[in-house]
Amino acid sequence: MKKGIHHHQIGEGVDTYLLIKNAKRGIASNGKPFLTLHLSDKTGEIEAKLWGISPEDEATFLSGTVSHIQGEVQDFRGMRQLKIKAIRPTSSMDQVKPDDFLPSAPRNKDEMLEEVTQYIFDMQNAKIQRITRHLFKKHQKAFSVSPAATKNHHEFVSGLLYHVVSMLQLAKNISSLYPTLDKDLLYAGVILHDMAKVKELSGPMATQYTIEGKLLGHITIMVNEIEEAANELGIEGEEVLVLQHLVLSHHSKGEWGSPKPPLIREAEMLHMIDNIDAKMNMLDRTLDRVLPGEFSERVFAMDNRSFYKPTFHEKPIDL
Amino acid sequence: MKKGIHHHQIGEGVDTYLLIKNAKRGIASNGKPFLTLHLSDKTGEIEAKLWGISPEDEATFLSGTVSHIQGEVQDFRGMRQLKIKAIRPTSSMDQVKPDDFLPSAPRNKDEMLEEVTQYIFDMQNAKIQRITRHLFKKHQKAFSVSPAATKNHHEFVSGLLYHVVSMLQLAKNISSLYPTLDKDLLYAGVILHDMAKVKELSGPMATQYTIEGKLLGHITIMVNEIEEAANELGIEGEEVLVLQHLVLSHHSKGEWGSPKPPLIREAEMLHMIDNIDAKMNMLDRTLDRVLPGEFSERVFAMDNRSFYKPTFHEKPIDL
Amino acid sequence: MKKGIHHHQIGEGVDTYLLIKNAKRGIASNGKPFLTLHLSDKTGEIEAKLWGISPEDEATFLSGTVSHIQGEVQDFRGMRQLKIKAIRPTSSMDQVKPDDFLPSAPRNKDEMLEEVTQYIFDMQNAKIQRITRHLFKKHQKAFSVSPAATKNHHEFVSGLLYHVVSMLQLAKNISSLYPTLDKDLLYAGVILHDMAKVKELSGPMATQYTIEGKLLGHITIMVNEIEEAANELGIEGEEVLVLQHLVLSHHSKGEWGSPKPPLIREAEMLHMIDNIDAKMNMLDRTLDRVLPGEFSERVFAMDNRSFYKPTFHEKPIDL
Amino acid sequence: MKKGIHHHQIGEGVDTYLLIKNAKRGIASNGKPFLTLHLSDKTGEIEAKLWGISPEDEATFLSGTVSHIQGEVQDFRGMRQLKIKAIRPTSSMDQVKPDDFLPSAPRNKDEMLEEVTQYIFDMQNAKIQRITRHLFKKHQKAFSVSPAATKNHHEFVSGLLYHVVSMLQLAKNISSLYPTLDKDLLYAGVILHDMAKVKELSGPMATQYTIEGKLLGHITIMVNEIEEAANELGIEGEEVLVLQHLVLSHHSKGEWGSPKPPLIREAEMLHMIDNIDAKMNMLDRTLDRVLPGEFSERVFAMDNRSFYKPTFHEKPIDL
Amino acid sequence: MKKGIHHHQIGEGVDTYLLIKNAKRGIASNGKPFLTLHLSDKTGEIEAKLWGISPEDEATFLSGTVSHIQGEVQDFRGMRQLKIKAIRPTSSMDQVKPDDFLPSAPRNKDEMLEEVTQYIFDMQNAKIQRITRHLFKKHQKAFSVSPAATKNHHEFVSGLLYHVVSMLQLAKNISSLYPTLDKDLLYAGVILHDMAKVKELSGPMATQYTIEGKLLGHITIMVNEIEEAANELGIEGEEVLVLQHLVLSHHSKGEWGSPKPPLIREAEMLHMIDNIDAKMNMLDRTLDRVLPGEFSERVFAMDNRSFYKPTFHEKPIDL
Amino acid sequence: MKKGIHHHQIGEGVDTYLLIKNAKRGIASNGKPFLTLHLSDKTGEIEAKLWGISPEDEATFLSGTVSHIQGEVQDFRGMRQLKIKAIRPTSSMDQVKPDDFLPSAPRNKDEMLEEVTQYIFDMQNAKIQRITRHLFKKHQKAFSVSPAATKNHHEFVSGLLYHVVSMLQLAKNISSLYPTLDKDLLYAGVILHDMAKVKELSGPMATQYTIEGKLLGHITIMVNEIEEAANELGIEGEEVLVLQHLVLSHHSKGEWGSPKPPLIREAEMLHMIDNIDAKMNMLDRTLDRVLPGEFSERVFAMDNRSFYKPTFHEKPIDL
Repeated sequence: MKKGIHHHQIGEGVDTYLLIKNAKRGIASNGKPFLTLHLSDKTGEIEAKLWGISPEDEATFLSGTVSHIQGEVQDFRGMRQLKIKAIRPTSSMDQVKPDDFLPSAPRNKDEMLEEVTQYIFDMQNAKIQRITRHLFKKHQKAFSVSPAATKNHHEFVSGLLYHVVSMLQLAKNISSLYPTLDKDLLYAGVILHDMAKVKELSGPMATQYTIEGKLLGHITIMVNEIEEAANELGIEGEEVLVLQHLVLSHHSKGEWGSPKPPLIREAEMLHMIDNIDAKMNMLDRTLDRVLPGEFSERVFAMDNRSFYKPTFHEKPIDL
Repeated sequence: MKKGIHHHQIGEGVDTYLLIKNAKRGIASNGKPFLTLHLSDKTGEIEAKLWGISPEDEATFLSGTVSHIQGEVQDFRGMRQLKIKAIRPTSSMDQVKPDDFLPSAPRNKDEMLEEVTQYIFDMQNAKIQRITRHLFKKHQKAFSVSPAATKNHHEFVSGLLYHVVSMLQLAKNISSLYPTLDKDLLYAGVILHDMAKVKELSGPMATQYTIEGKLLGHITIMVNEIEEAANELGIEGEEVLVLQHLVLSHHSKGEWGSPKPPLIREAEMLHMIDNIDAKMNMLDRTLDRVLPGEFSERVFAMDNRSFYKPTFHEKPIDL
Repeated sequence: MKKGIHHHQIGEGVDTYLLIKNAKRGIASNGKPFLTLHLSDKTGEIEAKLWGISPEDEATFLSGTVSHIQGEVQDFRGMRQLKIKAIRPTSSMDQVKPDDFLPSAPRNKDEMLEEVTQYIFDMQNAKIQRITRHLFKKHQKAFSVSPAATKNHHEFVSGLLYHVVSMLQLAKNISSLYPTLDKDLLYAGVILHDMAKVKELSGPMATQYTIEGKLLGHITIMVNEIEEAANELGIEGEEVLVLQHLVLSHHSKGEWGSPKPPLIREAEMLHMIDNIDAKMNMLDRTLDRVLPGEFSERVFAMDNRSFYKPTFHEKPIDL
Repeated sequence: MKKGIHHHQIGEGVDTYLLIKNAKRGIASNGKPFLTLHLSDKTGEIEAKLWGISPEDEATFLSGTVSHIQGEVQDFRGMRQLKIKAIRPTSSMDQVKPDDFLPSAPRNKDEMLEEVTQYIFDMQNAKIQRITRHLFKKHQKAFSVSPAATKNHHEFVSGLLYHVVSMLQLAKNISSLYPTLDKDLLYAGVILHDMAKVKELSGPMATQYTIEGKLLGHITIMVNEIEEAANELGIEGEEVLVLQHLVLSHHSKGEWGSPKPPLIREAEMLHMIDNIDAKMNMLDRTLDRVLPGEFSERVFAMDNRSFYKPTFHEKPIDL
Repeated sequence: MKKGIHHHQIGEGVDTYLLIKNAKRGIASNGKPFLTLHLSDKTGEIEAKLWGISPEDEATFLSGTVSHIQGEVQDFRGMRQLKIKAIRPTSSMDQVKPDDFLPSAPRNKDEMLEEVTQYIFDMQNAKIQRITRHLFKKHQKAFSVSPAATKNHHEFVSGLLYHVVSMLQLAKNISSLYPTLDKDLLYAGVILHDMAKVKELSGPMATQYTIEGKLLGHITIMVNEIEEAANELGIEGEEVLVLQHLVLSHHSKGEWGSPKPPLIREAEMLHMIDNIDAKMNMLDRTLDRVLPGEFSERVFAMDNRSFYKPTFHEKPIDL
Repeated sequence: MKKGIHHHQIGEGVDTYLLIKNAKRGIASNGKPFLTLHLSDKTGEIEAKLWGISPEDEATFLSGTVSHIQGEVQDFRGMRQLKIKAIRPTSSMDQVKPDDFLPSAPRNKDEMLEEVTQYIFDMQNAKIQRITRHLFKKHQKAFSVSPAATKNHHEFVSGLLYHVVSMLQLAKNISSLYPTLDKDLLYAGVILHDMAKVKELSGPMATQYTIEGKLLGHITIMVNEIEEAANELGIEGEEVLVLQHLVLSHHSKGEWGSPKPPLIREAEMLHMIDNIDAKMNMLDRTLDRVLPGEFSERVFAMDNRSFYKPTFHEKPIDL
């Protein structure tokens, strides 16, 4: 079996099928049009330039299609880039389909949905349980495939669900150490905190922000949704307000998008758990390709740091 | 007619009825209990200390009661303070009632409500008009007496309504100069932007933040209310989203409580109009007592500046 | 009549005369020289690149000359750019002159000067009036054509005058609502606040900062000018100091160039009026080309925001 | 058994023995001397003032002695304070000793030392294990009783050890979820990160910063210690450098005392684990006394927030 | 000869004449009036409280008079304070006069003026020399006694002159090491940079900011003065502009009061020299009283740091 | 003798030998490989691009070799760049060697070492002297050729030594003016403060950060070295701690890399002296090429300012 695109080192040759996730036209400094392609397979993504294109090329290499590409991975200002030597579009003869080339979560979608369901099932507080279940059911379909972001972390099919399940496991482990934490509240906070990403983002393919996402954002949308759910279910009581506060405050600071900071124990913990899972996801993907004794690419979302892999750490697995 | 408490200079004697808006017990550095009183009449407020109190005093000088007080206005670290020389509680014989001693807006409440109604009546866009009217009617009673804040600006009975009417006049004048502004949107934004202060604050007497106010804040509450209003009225379309955005962004920056900055022309203008009216209210009240050629008390909410009244400006009116 | 360059959408063809406001030589990444051209007509400006130029081209396409250009408007990293397909210099045969291609204020210069004169005429305080009139007369010629800035807002012929007249109208409207404002002081502040831009900037064509502008700045230069004017006119009294303070503080904060923050009521209002007019000018020009339902280019001077035009707003006029 | 001082509500009477952890002389605003006492028992600490003291009082109520005190818990500017009604020194007749009144960790010291030893025993990497064990042995005595800070969190006898053990448990749980983490490195980082607090702080009674603590700080001292340990043990290799980096970067940012940010996966995780345990400790102690439906005192070290205990949460245990 | 007030340690008795530099009435927390006195002799200043004063006391212990005081130096929240045990006003019999009790520069005024004159005399550039000499002559009288500030550094009689002479010596030494520096420009910058303090401050006794000082500040006033001087002397040329820039930029950043940062080599050096002399003055005065092995009071103007005097450094001289 | 590369103006031709300090491969926007060369001679450095290279070119124009180059100095976005017209490698026939083309300090290395030795010889405090001498001897060889940085200032052979000697002269001059300064401490601080750059940087040719440099930094490494030196020499006493503090705090603020701010008089002065010498070095090199009446390139490390050379200043020397 072939090695995925994510695992190619600088200097390695590439001869494989890749999905064009996104194709954008530009004008080179010599005045000629070119395409910037975001190419992917299951394992990840890489950027490439297609220079000196004809109008036919533009009409052929469209977002959402699969091409066969030969080339070489190169270094461009500290980032990997694929230099294309040959490219051809695919036909039915090639027997490839776009969905097989989208990066997606490393776990099975239905298994993860089942796991979330179990956490909801175990809740003791009926109000929290009913609101969470209601919203989970309402958005389940989009929720099960949505990425958690357009870039930075969990930006793949089912990324949101994978992020939530990892956070639930963290929540379970940590609340076993700090018994004052209200597990129901914390689990509900985890399940709901990013749920409105299904409205803020346009879905798993060519993900971008919706108008509602830009003008309101997923935090405000979700607070609305909780209000509406409580109304529909006829639920009153402070649980509604507190769940809204958990969602509202999970980015922790005004300048990061939360109009109120966490003012409840579980709200503070929700923010810290979110942080851990996002950062571990970024670090794992960044250090995956780095050899022991070397520094990684810069990670913009982590203060632009370049991370080091100690010489006494394992080499990356050669797939 | 007697001069109001707001207009007393340092060194002037006081011999009048005053409402105890707020009484708070403390322990002096000699170990004895004392009361910190916030005293007010129609014209404003002043702080006073009642030293060496007995348990009976504590039971007598309660928040919400009117007392007769003799004393002198003094300077305490650059702020005015009333030194009490004699104080007695009032009885029915005194023929005074608390409501007559609360500072309130300089304009008639019903007249102002009428003026807002007229602005709504003039709107062209039916969706914007119906949502605004619906919410105005729903909260009209509390809206008509609520202060706009607990301190800093418009912190008096009907302060919120007075602030809104002043902003509507500004909006009308300014939109006559910049014809690209959508008047309907701007007026609706003005009327709705702070409306949820009726839920965030506890009302005009002894005003404080509610739990909902502290955990969600008036901006988020109001965005919820617009959603609910649109649902109840069966209104769809981008107007709902845009009105929510105007409310959401009116504090302009994340660190000031707006999770999204203004991204629509009228949202930017709403923020600037809000700013002008709040600052002019603070400046007028601050400079009111200042003599030409002197500097004012420091104004905390305006970067702690101390403002100067030029010698060629009018003296304050001696009431 | 032909549509101006400001109104061309991405993808539209161009076949017209344009002024080369500025031509700058650069070296492309293939090592060959090219020109970056800022092209304009009355309606606005667009950037273009002229690739692979010869020494003759360099000597031909000079700043301040008019060329005939064929090409297409394209998108370059979210900004509009004109792709030149054919360009030729003009001769006397073309009957075009540079001045007709400079963007300028939408109102008649003399009419605006007249309007400023009227505001000065109406002042009650003789000292303020005399200083303002003296400086207005002294700089009238340059003042009537100067742009208000090299970029961002009012960066066109008579932009400074247009900005001042708009602010005077705002000042008039707002001071009718807040009667504590001293109209004389506010009007004088508006007229004088940016007047030293005539010394800070090099004039309407190929505008750049002068050495004096870079080492002292228009604020300090203008404070000097007021001092000098008062000396020449033999005027003493606090009005001189207060006018200097208004100019000195109109950028509001040290990090924005004002060594003192506004400490006088009218100084605070001057800053807010300046802000409103600058932002409305930027917003109008930015949203002018945007279709309903779309986001604008990013506006650097407004925190790099991209603004939205609601779907229920008018389409831009098709000229 | 009597309720501890930590659990007294505002208004409750006190009649008990308390340790004077710290006694500081001051001059009241009436010119008379007084003592500010920090009083404690096993459960916590409270401040009190002793007014109008004589020279004998000063010589009697010394730091480190136990007194018998009657009084009442009162509110002073939002903080609890004990109003002393009667106080007498104790003699051998009272059969009390200071050590029994120092707040200390809720777990047995030797049990915790044993637990740390087990974590060291389980390490696979011999270099990491030897350095950690060496330093743990070297400082074990002071380490076992040192507080983790002078205030804010874990500021009690064995607070440092308790903090380290909690973090080890967190590290174990979290690394079971993220298998890319190097457990040896993470455990060693946890054990060593604050170890130099034994040199930075003066010990568990009347804790203050040493001169070395003020001029170098525990981070720099510990990096030195690791260097020295490696030299003494004759250990070479990148493990030494990486352990130093973990200690050096555990405050995460320059302005928080770390000259380098975390640049290794385990360094980032160490910082996050430290953060979780410190914050949970502060939250637990703060919310311990708060009744459901009320807000806590402000917590300075957590951005001065005041936290809310939901009405549907358990009441605090009445001891 | 008696030891000056600056050199008294905590706990030492005082029995001496002191000048009341400033007397301010306040109300104690027991409701009684008291005086806050700033007392000084040649060596420095100390604060004291006079409790429970009568109206006669108020009329007796006025600013600008000398009293005979017995008391003790005490610690008040980390600052020294004089506890007054006995105080009496002085009469002609005491043969003391206020001027002898004002702290002043450690060097002779006329000698220092002579030294400045010599630096001016040595200048090569006639334009710079003439402007500097003109302004030095014009303000010489006030300049020779003015403090350099109201607090923080050089806040004593002739403090400004002493600061300037020290900076001239620094300038001379440093420019001998960096020959690219223009000595004339640097010396002129030193002499002029703070000269307008003579207008910004009210003089050496009870120093406070003037209205002009508050509304314009010494930087802007001095730039005006240079302009005026050049006009009067008929001097043209870039020297005038450059001298204005040096004064304008000497605080280095907008938020510190300089609308332009240093853009000329000598402007940058001027800022650094100013910084060195101000900080050394603060450090010397702060560490003067500190014993080896101890930390100083906090120095607000130096980021609130508390400085350490090493044990191997000399003890302060016992006068 | 030929003019060095540092002194060529924009537009001047070049025909000379140059060292390739650094050659880096890139991909141009037309897809072809190119080399970015950093070329130097004794006087300085210039960047150049070699377009459209063959594999042979890559193998020929290696870092550390000398080539003969013809070309022209051009302006690229405000920075100088060398446009290469012809390039050929050198052979033994050319009689050139790389070392002769490295920019280096303007003073003789051995003379400077001698000067440092003299400062150490003159120290009075034996502990300070012995530690300083020990470390100076230990690192003398690398210390004598190391640059002080990879860019910004003193980035040439022996740059560190040159920087230290300049600072010693400053320290001597300044401490003659402020007699409270401990000369021994200050000199030792100067000599040691950046000494660990010999471990943080990889040496004078193709200078880059080492792993130790990235993970610990020269400040922490040097504090370790002082500890070790004191141990080896058997020196105890506060001098060791204080020297460590001087090194630790010399960047002054946490965000600039110092975990403790200067808390000792000499530490504050060390920071200021370091600042002066670094800035004068940057200014001299920047203004060296600037003609009177013009502004320099922007200096990134000095807040990105562009500096002005007055018209009345000398022209740069034409070598």
